[in-house]
Amino acid sequence: MIKTAALDINDDNTNNSSSSNEMVVTPWEVKGKVDYDRLIKEFGTQPLTSQLLKRIETHTDNKLHLQLERKIFFSHRDLDTTLELYEKGTKFVLYTGRGPSGPVHIGHLVPWIFTLHLQQTFKTRLYFQITDDEKYLVNDERDLKETTKWSYENALDLIALGFKPEDTFIIYNTKDIDLLYDITLEVAKRITYSTARSSFGFQDSTNIGWVYWAAIQAAPCFIHKKLTGENVPALIPAAIDQDPYWRVTRDVAQKLGYHKPAQIHCRFLPGLGTGGKMSASMPETSIFTTDQPNDVKKKIWGAYTGGKPTAAEQRKTGANPQICSIYQYYHYIFEEDPTKLKEREHKCTTGEILCGECKKDITEKLNKFLEAHQERREKAKNIIEQYHIKR
Amino acid sequence: MIKTAALDINDDNTNNSSSSNEMVVTPWEVKGKVDYDRLIKEFGTQPLTSQLLKRIETHTDNKLHLQLERKIFFSHRDLDTTLELYEKGTKFVLYTGRGPSGPVHIGHLVPWIFTLHLQQTFKTRLYFQITDDEKYLVNDERDLKETTKWSYENALDLIALGFKPEDTFIIYNTKDIDLLYDITLEVAKRITYSTARSSFGFQDSTNIGWVYWAAIQAAPCFIHKKLTGENVPALIPAAIDQDPYWRVTRDVAQKLGYHKPAQIHCRFLPGLGTGGKMSASMPETSIFTTDQPNDVKKKIWGAYTGGKPTAAEQRKTGANPQICSIYQYYHYIFEEDPTKLKEREHKCTTGEILCGECKKDITEKLNKFLEAHQERREKAKNIIEQYHIKR
Repeated sequence: MIKTAALDINDDNTNNSSSSNEMVVTPWEVKGKVDYDRLIKEFGTQPLTSQLLKRIETHTDNKLHLQLERKIFFSHRDLDTTLELYEKGTKFVLYTGRGPSGPVHIGHLVPWIFTLHLQQTFKTRLYFQITDDEKYLVNDERDLKETTKWSYENALDLIALGFKPEDTFIIYNTKDIDLLYDITLEVAKRITYSTARSSFGFQDSTNIGWVYWAAIQAAPCFIHKKLTGENVPALIPAAIDQDPYWRVTRDVAQKLGYHKPAQIHCRFLPGLGTGGKMSASMPETSIFTTDQPNDVKKKIWGAYTGGKPTAAEQRKTGANPQICSIYQYYHYIFEEDPTKLKEREHKCTTGEILCGECKKDITEKLNKFLEAHQERREKAKNIIEQYHIKR
Repeated sequence: MIKTAALDINDDNTNNSSSSNEMVVTPWEVKGKVDYDRLIKEFGTQPLTSQLLKRIETHTDNKLHLQLERKIFFSHRDLDTTLELYEKGTKFVLYTGRGPSGPVHIGHLVPWIFTLHLQQTFKTRLYFQITDDEKYLVNDERDLKETTKWSYENALDLIALGFKPEDTFIIYNTKDIDLLYDITLEVAKRITYSTARSSFGFQDSTNIGWVYWAAIQAAPCFIHKKLTGENVPALIPAAIDQDPYWRVTRDVAQKLGYHKPAQIHCRFLPGLGTGGKMSASMPETSIFTTDQPNDVKKKIWGAYTGGKPTAAEQRKTGANPQICSIYQYYHYIFEEDPTKLKEREHKCTTGEILCGECKKDITEKLNKFLEAHQERREKAKNIIEQYHIKR
């Protein structure tokens, strides 16, 4: 696992990497308590200001999407200039993706739901890259058959969210390399090994596939021109851990005659354990889209909350929703009504409701959501080929 | 231009890289006086022994091909074990290729002619890789359109030599990356950056496309299994400058369940200038396959020979065919009869013939060869698609 000096952000006062709560945010690993303000500073991105949010509102019926309102998307690069171009008549395309290392969980859906909102609002095309090659390259144990299997499974989840085939183009890297390769060459020719090393923390022992791979993730930023002849910017809604890729891509874009890709960065939905991102490698801390009602019930029941040791104490002093993984589920996705969210928070902090009630409610909401998602996911099997780019 | 410590072989007694006759043999540059015995030692290959040549003879009607007889192919790796497998019933495939940086010259045809001989003798399939991606990546000035154009032009020359479409498969890298990519990933995952650096002399300023590229040249060694299900070794007839690629490929082959590729290495046909390989960047030192009779005449007339300052002196003391670029043309390709070659050599060293006569003869032979080649090259345009691997 690579940790880069630029990305493996230790506390200023210590280099003790054994601290379990140390923040590590790289494209391949996120752990510890994530300090998002610090990421903005260290990565050199821009915060989503209230001024910029107001500008977005003018395009969204004067109502901000929940994920903007609640600052789940919190940072950006060139979103302002992308909007400016849009307002003057230059459209943009959306680009995001998925590393198919296992099943999709609720945390993965968060930025995809927001991407769908952007697509519907701005009536624009989405390129969605499924990076089976990367997942194969960065893990000694994985084989390509496995990541290719997950590519298919994960694409079903994307489609189940409601993306339409007419403006959603799924790129499966190993299957669609013929569409990407010439662009990857253009990009790769302009990234030196030393730039790649300092951006991603590569070491002598890093395999050369991994070294090249930045060019593969860059390619969909520029593919629209190849497919349509239109040279428009790409806007990338994604978690902030992918930022190093966009930095190197932005550095080469204009040399190649393209717009710099813009980004809008989101936070990670915390896992059901004690903090951190959801992790497919700890299945008990994530709700997967294919989980059955009993799985959900069991996982939610075992989830970490901000509750007190005894019910009596909690009724007396209240609990802490800010550290509660269940509360985050409401906050990120499952309580759209801000008044009701506020109410739940209030009841929690005053001891009016106990964790059991919140867990029962979210289990119901989750299972209702998953039942509908799984039904659409099944139907997606019949139409998945429509999302594949035609030759 | 990369020069690696392993490949940029200075004279033992000096590191003076400004010496114009210093030997440099890398996949991207060959210059200076090439010491082939030393390459065998430094690259760690095996000489083609008389014992091995005898063994080859048993497959070729007890007659060695000119290029073996004259030790133009002089070194190998695992040719013996490949023959052993063949004799026991395991076939092999041939693999060679071309970097399409410009027009093909006679020097390029030398190993291709030998490859055709091997193909006809052993009745086996040839994979021929045209590396437009590499030629683009390693030169700042080149664009992909240019290298793709040369891919087509160079393929015509291959076909013109008489390769048949039923057992000759041309791989155009940028067009056929869909066939190669999964294999390149398998290979790349098992080559560390430090191995690539030490094998090819990469530096911090090397672009990441170049770093990856070894995996692309490796892939055709293993493609036969993917296309046919047969796991057989590849035998690569090629100039020895490509050897670093095969070293890294051989190191990963067995880990991936393939045979190690075998090689048979040839010398470079010297250019018409004072020594060194023919170079497309010095057009006056090479005879290109598309040259017209007058071009040939002019170039041959200006060629470097082993002649003396005056005709009188040469008649008296003879000339030196060993340093004569014209004599090399007879030796490599244009005098198949060893007795006649010997005769010409004798007449030269004794002053019986002068350089003008040899130049006149070779011009005739070259123009006759080129006329027929150019005719077949034109016809190749109608059948070139038949050599493209079907999906």
